[in-house]
Amino acid sequence: MRQILWGRGILNDLRCRGPYYWSDLKDAYNYRVIPSVVFIFFTNLLPAIAFAQDMFDRTDNSYGVNEVLMSSAMAGVVFGLLSGQPLCIVGVTGPIAIFSYTVYEIMKPRGTPFFPFMCWIYLWGMVMHFIIAYFNWVSFMKIISNFSCEVFGFFICIVYCHKAGEMLVRQFETDGVAAGFASVTIALLMVLFGLGATVFGSQLHYFKPWIRKIFVDYGVPLSVIFFTGFIHFGGYLGDVHLSRLATSRAFEPTTNSAAVGRAHGWFIHFWPGENISVGDVFIAVPFALLLTFLFYFDHNVSSLMCQLKEYPLKKPAAFHWDFMLLGLTTGISGILGIPAPNGLIPQAPLHTASLVVHDHNGKPISVVEQRLTNTLQGVFTFVLMTGPFLIILGLIPQAVLCGLFFIMGINGFHEGAVINKIRWLFLDNDYIESDPDALPMWKELSRIPKHKLKYFYIYLTLQFVAGVAEFAITLTRGAVGFPGVLLFFMFCAKWLWKYIIPEEDLEYLDGAVAEDFIIKSLEVHPSDGEKLQYDSEADDKLSA
Amino acid sequence: MRQILWGRGILNDLRCRGPYYWSDLKDAYNYRVIPSVVFIFFTNLLPAIAFAQDMFDRTDNSYGVNEVLMSSAMAGVVFGLLSGQPLCIVGVTGPIAIFSYTVYEIMKPRGTPFFPFMCWIYLWGMVMHFIIAYFNWVSFMKIISNFSCEVFGFFICIVYCHKAGEMLVRQFETDGVAAGFASVTIALLMVLFGLGATVFGSQLHYFKPWIRKIFVDYGVPLSVIFFTGFIHFGGYLGDVHLSRLATSRAFEPTTNSAAVGRAHGWFIHFWPGENISVGDVFIAVPFALLLTFLFYFDHNVSSLMCQLKEYPLKKPAAFHWDFMLLGLTTGISGILGIPAPNGLIPQAPLHTASLVVHDHNGKPISVVEQRLTNTLQGVFTFVLMTGPFLIILGLIPQAVLCGLFFIMGINGFHEGAVINKIRWLFLDNDYIESDPDALPMWKELSRIPKHKLKYFYIYLTLQFVAGVAEFAITLTRGAVGFPGVLLFFMFCAKWLWKYIIPEEDLEYLDGAVAEDFIIKSLEVHPSDGEKLQYDSEADDKLSA
Repeated sequence: MRQILWGRGILNDLRCRGPYYWSDLKDAYNYRVIPSVVFIFFTNLLPAIAFAQDMFDRTDNSYGVNEVLMSSAMAGVVFGLLSGQPLCIVGVTGPIAIFSYTVYEIMKPRGTPFFPFMCWIYLWGMVMHFIIAYFNWVSFMKIISNFSCEVFGFFICIVYCHKAGEMLVRQFETDGVAAGFASVTIALLMVLFGLGATVFGSQLHYFKPWIRKIFVDYGVPLSVIFFTGFIHFGGYLGDVHLSRLATSRAFEPTTNSAAVGRAHGWFIHFWPGENISVGDVFIAVPFALLLTFLFYFDHNVSSLMCQLKEYPLKKPAAFHWDFMLLGLTTGISGILGIPAPNGLIPQAPLHTASLVVHDHNGKPISVVEQRLTNTLQGVFTFVLMTGPFLIILGLIPQAVLCGLFFIMGINGFHEGAVINKIRWLFLDNDYIESDPDALPMWKELSRIPKHKLKYFYIYLTLQFVAGVAEFAITLTRGAVGFPGVLLFFMFCAKWLWKYIIPEEDLEYLDGAVAEDFIIKSLEVHPSDGEKLQYDSEADDKLSA
Repeated sequence: MRQILWGRGILNDLRCRGPYYWSDLKDAYNYRVIPSVVFIFFTNLLPAIAFAQDMFDRTDNSYGVNEVLMSSAMAGVVFGLLSGQPLCIVGVTGPIAIFSYTVYEIMKPRGTPFFPFMCWIYLWGMVMHFIIAYFNWVSFMKIISNFSCEVFGFFICIVYCHKAGEMLVRQFETDGVAAGFASVTIALLMVLFGLGATVFGSQLHYFKPWIRKIFVDYGVPLSVIFFTGFIHFGGYLGDVHLSRLATSRAFEPTTNSAAVGRAHGWFIHFWPGENISVGDVFIAVPFALLLTFLFYFDHNVSSLMCQLKEYPLKKPAAFHWDFMLLGLTTGISGILGIPAPNGLIPQAPLHTASLVVHDHNGKPISVVEQRLTNTLQGVFTFVLMTGPFLIILGLIPQAVLCGLFFIMGINGFHEGAVINKIRWLFLDNDYIESDPDALPMWKELSRIPKHKLKYFYIYLTLQFVAGVAEFAITLTRGAVGFPGVLLFFMFCAKWLWKYIIPEEDLEYLDGAVAEDFIIKSLEVHPSDGEKLQYDSEADDKLSA
């Protein structure tokens, strides 16, 4: 009975979303599209170039700004035009940056050419994506619980802050102590201005709300521009040499070197036996498995997050089709020798948020669901690969990128569930009970009966340990295995924690990631009567 | 008839306050005295040593840490034990630092020995203080309006921030670019932690309120201690040499040099003709006039501010007696060759605030009015002049002092009337009307009728110009004349502005500094029927 459903997920997706294609174009005729494009372009670009610099430094210049721009541009156009959920922003993420340079670090001593090897990882990965999409296995997303998602968010923020520190240390090493401290100063000021703009825009009360929103939306890009200029302020800043973002020639790969397997420009020759040994082709399989799991997790969670209940979406999702598409872009990335893009957190949900239409009371009433914003930001990214824009990008000091990493990390911590649970531990209970501004999560945690609190502490400790463990492995020689650690804890959350925390309490603490209505869209066959527990039910049980 | 009242102010003060002397000692037996002493000790000490470093640099080491400590210690003990208002903290202020080094800069090229000259300024100043006290002229405080007070506060904050920047630049000059940028980094972090502690303690909701109060009270001293240790953190900080606070030998003057007129240790030989020319003795008179006006203004305003209506004080004030006492400490300072102390803002009001006793609803019910806190902080400051403590003080990096100046400046701006009026210009009116946290001042400004607003703009512009003018003159060769500029604008506020702004509006915008009940205590003869306009009356007029 079951096998006739194979491929049904993709077909269903096409059948459901297809009829909306024309409206996806027509609905773009809306004012909100303009600020949204500008906002998402910068929000996508800035972390991407920061990761580009990081990969550039750690792969002996194999990957650089042009590879990252190419990847982001392709992802924007492909997902903008073809995906079933064009609100999901796809691009170069922190995890893929770590994955890429750790593969480089592992394979370089073995003499394996980098690009053909990456190409095979991506090609195997493409096949695995296709298999997952064809067999409707994206439905298994429903077993991923909040535990892993929250830990992943926590892990990413640690990575951001660590990268910032690492890159600052590199400034000392390459440009000397004076330039190093100048970089620390710039990074600190950048953080102050970047986060200050958000605080100014959202917590303070200067100007009218619509002007304040400009500070929230464009504070970070404006800080990048300001501090890129600031280093030319003169005075003692003129006495130090500050490294800039490393760029190369327009539309060309950063490095054309036969040594790493890139002798033919953008097109990687990956024939086994000729450009890479047959053995290495198969060594790429386990890497591809790790990559596929990473993308399965990261992309689908991004997609889920850009269509949360709080955004009043009206058009259907298309998880199976999109995952097949992700396989395709992964394969193309391999052949072009660029890092493969996947769903971006927090860019994807921020993109949806930027398209929400509110009524006079600030209540969201609809979302401008269309394909233009995603596509256009991809096109603009492609334009950045022209000479003049590369020169402009090349003006950005690396210290500014460090500040950018800090801003992303701190913002992420501020919003992240793990950190907000830790904050709750230290918060004044009077405040949580009396202040309407206290997070709903805190109010809920404060309602946990005292004798049940120990389970919350255990759960939080497990999350903290898992996050730190995931980060710790990225510092070791086994760094590339970090998606495996993620997978391990995902299984723990599903099958192991219930031996530590009574099941009804675990259900309360750890809900399913996908919300009710999304899970329905993940499934391709009628529900088999299995009933999932949701927060509200578990809540009733606990308080009963 | 009038001359029989001469000296009556001082006598009245002694007669009124005298009977409380025993209770001033007895009332010190209260728990609040302990945290208050610790708090005011650091709050007084830290800016003092920052000014010490500044004077040290700008007077060729004539004044240094020991002179400043001696001055603060003497002031604490004398005013703690003998003054009529022992809550008023007296010490080395920013203006006297500016006054001192500008006198040095003016007189040094003339070959005048610095210490005998300062001694004569202070001796003349003492005489002038006595005259003012004897003729009850402290009563004229009532003609000083809010205009000058607010401008003075604004001016001081600009000076703080400017000093911070100046001292940072000096780090580049003396220790090189690397140490310079390291200092900037430390100063920035110091500001983040120092102000962050205040925000953490007053705006955020972690821990119980009494723990948060610790962050507010001790955040800045703890930051000083932390960052003094931080420079030994190692890494690249070990590669730079950071200048520390300059200290000298225990209980000895910083410099014993005949060239500047300090050949005999603490005791300055000031005999005319022998140690200083007779001409110079008389040149000291105009300087003494400026100094006297500065102290008249600064000390009495400090004293007023530490006995505002919001602090429920029960014991009487003693302005005339205290001003005579200030003349005495000024004279002694001259003879000891130390900068003369006077009333400190914001330390004086902060001191009273630290002694307020609240009921369960946080309403102030009384103040622990006693002599112990002021005296003890003076004694502790004296103890700092011992060898071991000087060594500890000598560990403090100058970068930390820069951070301290920034913190003082920013805190001052945040509380200052001029800046808060400027903030009002940019604030969202909806917020001011609806949010209970909006400053009462803003709510009041928002009630000004539209056709009257132009007078507010004019008034604020005049304040801004006056503040900037006062600061600007400190950058010129005529820096020492800045109290004259203060005096000039005081007269403008009294007699000139009314030709620009209609009198009833000016009355509304510019109230008397001294509140009703204080003015009564300033006057020594029955009121001659002249009626002063207060805010509330002017308010009624405007809204009518």
